[in-house]
Amino acid sequence: MDKVGPKVLILGAGRVCRPAAEFLTSYQNIDQVHVVVASLYQKDAEETVDGIKNATAAQLDVSDTESLSNLVSQVDVVVSLLPASFHAAIARVCIELKKHLVTASYVDDSMSKLEQAAQGAGVTILCEMGLDPGIDHMLSMKMIDEAHALNGKIKAFTSFCGGLPSPAAANNPLAYKFSWSPAGAIRAGRNPAVYKFLGEIIDVDGSKLYESAKRLRLPELPAFALEHLPNRNSLMYGDLYGISKEASTVYRSTLRYEGFSEIMAILAKIGFFDAENHPLLQETDRPTYRIFLNDLLDVNNVSTSNTKVNGEETGGHDDELISRLMMLGHCKEKELAVKILKTIKFLGLHEETQIPKDCSSAFTVICQRMEQRMAYGHNEQDMVLLHHEVEVEYPDGRPTEKHQATLLEFGKTENGRPTTAMALTVGVPAAIGALLLLQNKVQRKGVIRPLEPEIYIPALEILEASGIKLIE
Amino acid sequence: MDKVGPKVLILGAGRVCRPAAEFLTSYQNIDQVHVVVASLYQKDAEETVDGIKNATAAQLDVSDTESLSNLVSQVDVVVSLLPASFHAAIARVCIELKKHLVTASYVDDSMSKLEQAAQGAGVTILCEMGLDPGIDHMLSMKMIDEAHALNGKIKAFTSFCGGLPSPAAANNPLAYKFSWSPAGAIRAGRNPAVYKFLGEIIDVDGSKLYESAKRLRLPELPAFALEHLPNRNSLMYGDLYGISKEASTVYRSTLRYEGFSEIMAILAKIGFFDAENHPLLQETDRPTYRIFLNDLLDVNNVSTSNTKVNGEETGGHDDELISRLMMLGHCKEKELAVKILKTIKFLGLHEETQIPKDCSSAFTVICQRMEQRMAYGHNEQDMVLLHHEVEVEYPDGRPTEKHQATLLEFGKTENGRPTTAMALTVGVPAAIGALLLLQNKVQRKGVIRPLEPEIYIPALEILEASGIKLIE
Repeated sequence: MDKVGPKVLILGAGRVCRPAAEFLTSYQNIDQVHVVVASLYQKDAEETVDGIKNATAAQLDVSDTESLSNLVSQVDVVVSLLPASFHAAIARVCIELKKHLVTASYVDDSMSKLEQAAQGAGVTILCEMGLDPGIDHMLSMKMIDEAHALNGKIKAFTSFCGGLPSPAAANNPLAYKFSWSPAGAIRAGRNPAVYKFLGEIIDVDGSKLYESAKRLRLPELPAFALEHLPNRNSLMYGDLYGISKEASTVYRSTLRYEGFSEIMAILAKIGFFDAENHPLLQETDRPTYRIFLNDLLDVNNVSTSNTKVNGEETGGHDDELISRLMMLGHCKEKELAVKILKTIKFLGLHEETQIPKDCSSAFTVICQRMEQRMAYGHNEQDMVLLHHEVEVEYPDGRPTEKHQATLLEFGKTENGRPTTAMALTVGVPAAIGALLLLQNKVQRKGVIRPLEPEIYIPALEILEASGIKLIE
Repeated sequence: MDKVGPKVLILGAGRVCRPAAEFLTSYQNIDQVHVVVASLYQKDAEETVDGIKNATAAQLDVSDTESLSNLVSQVDVVVSLLPASFHAAIARVCIELKKHLVTASYVDDSMSKLEQAAQGAGVTILCEMGLDPGIDHMLSMKMIDEAHALNGKIKAFTSFCGGLPSPAAANNPLAYKFSWSPAGAIRAGRNPAVYKFLGEIIDVDGSKLYESAKRLRLPELPAFALEHLPNRNSLMYGDLYGISKEASTVYRSTLRYEGFSEIMAILAKIGFFDAENHPLLQETDRPTYRIFLNDLLDVNNVSTSNTKVNGEETGGHDDELISRLMMLGHCKEKELAVKILKTIKFLGLHEETQIPKDCSSAFTVICQRMEQRMAYGHNEQDMVLLHHEVEVEYPDGRPTEKHQATLLEFGKTENGRPTTAMALTVGVPAAIGALLLLQNKVQRKGVIRPLEPEIYIPALEILEASGIKLIE
C-alpha cells in the first residue's frame, strides 16, 4: 500500500483545473500528492480528473459551508480556481480550519480584510498565483530585486501581456478569438487606465482606450505584428513592486495583434458596444441584422439603391455603408472603412436574417455574433505572450542596462486532449503555490502575493522545469 | 501474399524524400504502392525509409547510367528529388526506358530540350511539382481557369511565397533561420527581378533587391508581420499562365518577416556579401571578427576609446560602431544603426575570436556565422506560407472580384520524428505527381508543368485530403 501522502483540494472544474491537478499528482520531488477536484456538478469534476492517477472527483456547492468545511478539513492545502467572488468565503473556512489557500485571482477588498485573521491563524492565503496576475509578478520582482541588489535603480518598468490566438488561428479581421463569452473582454476594452510615462502621469478615459493602442514589434520576436493598450491602474504596481519613487515609467499593458483596437474603436463609435436597450430590439417582430446596422449608421432608402444582378448584389449596399462610415466621421480614410465593412461582413452584422429575441441592445447583438464567429475552431491553438522590460540605472555611471524576460506558450494537444496555453500558464503556477505550501517553503502568513524571493525563486525554477520556458 | 502493386523509384535521400515515400506507401485508393528510395549512400536511403512499410532502400550513384537504368527498368514511375542539375541525365534514361518522371525543380534549358524525345517515347516528364514551383502553379491556374470560364479577365495576378521560421522560432533580429547552408539563400537575395505593376514594367537591379522590399499584412492572417520582395522574372509567369495580355499587374514575390530586408541591405552595404578574397583573410595569422568588422567599417584606434570598468565594456566600441554606420551613410537613423549593431552582436561579428582559415572573403565569414547562429533549434518549427491573389474583371460590368488562395503549413513532429513544412509541401506534391502517372490520369506527354486541369484538379484534391489545408 502507498504511504499516505499530502492532499490538495482543487475547487472548480474549469479548463485551468486539469493542468493544476496533473502537475500536482505527477510532481516527483515529494511524496505522492493526492488531489480532490470538487465542482458543483460531479460530472464536471469527473471529467477534469479523467485519466489522472491519484486524483478523485467530488461534488460540492461551495456556498454550503458545512460541506466545504468537511472537504477542507480532510486536505492539507486548498486551491480555488473558482470565480474571484467566491474566494473570500472559501478563505474564511480555510482560516477557521488553519489550512493554506491558493488562488489565481486579484486580491480584492473582501480578501484584504482577512489579512489579520489569516495572520492570527498562521495561515497563508497566496493570491495572484496565475499568469497575469502571477507569473508577471514573479518575473517583475526577480528583475527588480536583482537590480536593487546591485545598487541599481529601476528607471522604467514596462510589461506587456496577452492571451491571443496563435498567429495561424488569428484568421479574421480582428486577429482575435474568444474562448469564452466575449462580454467581459469587450467591457475590459472600455476600462479607464492610468500609468506613468517619462515622469508624467497619463490618464486614459475608458472611451478612448482603444484609440490609445500603440504598435509593437518585440525585437526578439519580430514576426508578431502586435499592439498594446494600457491595462487599468499601472501606478498600483509601482507601489506593489516598490519602485514608485525611482521609476519615471511604470506601464502595464494588454497585447493584441496590430489593428484590433482600430477596428474595436470604430465598432464602439458605430454604437455596437452600447448596453442600453435599443428601441428596434424591443419588439416581438424582430429586425434583421442589416436593418439594425442601417439604423445604427442612419442609412436610409437602402432598398432603392440596392439592385440585384443574376442574384448577386451589385455592391450598392457595401458602397453605401462605406460612405456612411466616412460621412459620420467614424473612418477618415476609405481604406479603413473598407476594413470595417469586411469586419461587419465577417461578423454577419449585415445579414438579412432576424436578430434573436434575447438580444435587446447593440452590445448583446455584437456579443452574440462575436461568440458565434470568433470562437476557436477545431485544432486551433491559443497563445500566451508575456514580455517585461526594465531599465536599470547605476549610481557608478555605468550605462543604463535594459533587462528583459519573455514567456511565449502555445496551446497543446496530447493524447487527443487539448490544453490551452492560458489554462496551462494559470493552472500550473497555482499548483506550484500549493506545492510550496505543502513543503512549508513559504514562511509569510496572511494574504500575500508572489512578490517575495521565498516564493518567486522556487516557483520560477519549478515552472521552467515543468516545461514553461522563460526567455531572459 | 500481396498482389504485386505498382512500384515507384525515389531518387535522393534529403528531407523531402521521406514525406514522399510515406505518402505513396500509405495511399489507400490504389493497389499497395512499393517505393524504392535510392541514394549515393545506402545508409541515407535506409534512414529515409526507416519504419515505412513497403519502402526499401537502395544504393545508387546516378552518374552510373547502367545502375540507374537497371533500377529504373524495375519500376513504373521515377521521382527525382536530387538537385536540379541531375535531372536531365535521369530524364534521358527514363525516356529510353519509357518510364514517366516527376521532379520538383524548374524546367531548365537542358530539360526543355528533351521535349521532343519525351513526346516521341510517349513519356511524361512532370516537372515543377513541389511547392514553389508546384502548388503555386496549381493554385494560380485553378483561379485563372475558373475566371476565364466565366468570361472574366485577370486584371492582376499577385503571388507571395515564403519558407520561414514559425513566428515563435523567428527569435533573432533577422526573424529568419536557415535549414541548410545560407550561401544560396543570400545569393538569391541579390538576384535582379522584373515584374509588371499597373501596366508598367519594373526592373529591379540585384543590388537594390533588398531595398525594394515592401511591408505586407495579409487581411486574413493579420498576426504575421511580413514583407515581400520581387522574385526574379515574374513576366515569364504571365506567359506561362496565359495572362500576359490581359493582366496589368503580374507580380511574384518572396516572403520574409518585416525588417529582414532592411538589415540585409545594410549588411550588403557594409560589404558582408562581397565574395572576393579579402586581403585580411589571406594570412595564416588570422584576424578576429572584431578586427575584420572594424576594417569593413573603417574604424581606427578602437582600443584607445574602449575602456573597461569591472571587466565590463563601457559601450565605447558599440558607440563607435553606431557612429561609423551613420557616418558611412549605411544607416540614416540611429534607431536603425542600433538594430544593425544588435544583429552584428547576435551573429558574433564583433567577437574577439579568430576567424577560421576556410573563410577567405567577407561573404564566407557571414555565411559561416549565419549557419552557426541562425540554425533551427531543437523543437523549433519552420513554416510555409503561400498566398495568391487575382483580380478578375467581367465584361458585363460587374464589379471587379478579388479571389484568393492561401496555404499555411507548419513543421510537425510525429513519433519523435520531425518533418519540416518545406519537406512536406515539396515531397507530397511530387508524390501526388507519381500517383497520377501510375493511375494514367495524365494524358499529356513531353516535358510539362502542373498547369493543366487534368493535373491540378486531382492534385489539389488529393493534397487537401492528405491534410495540407488550402484556404480559398
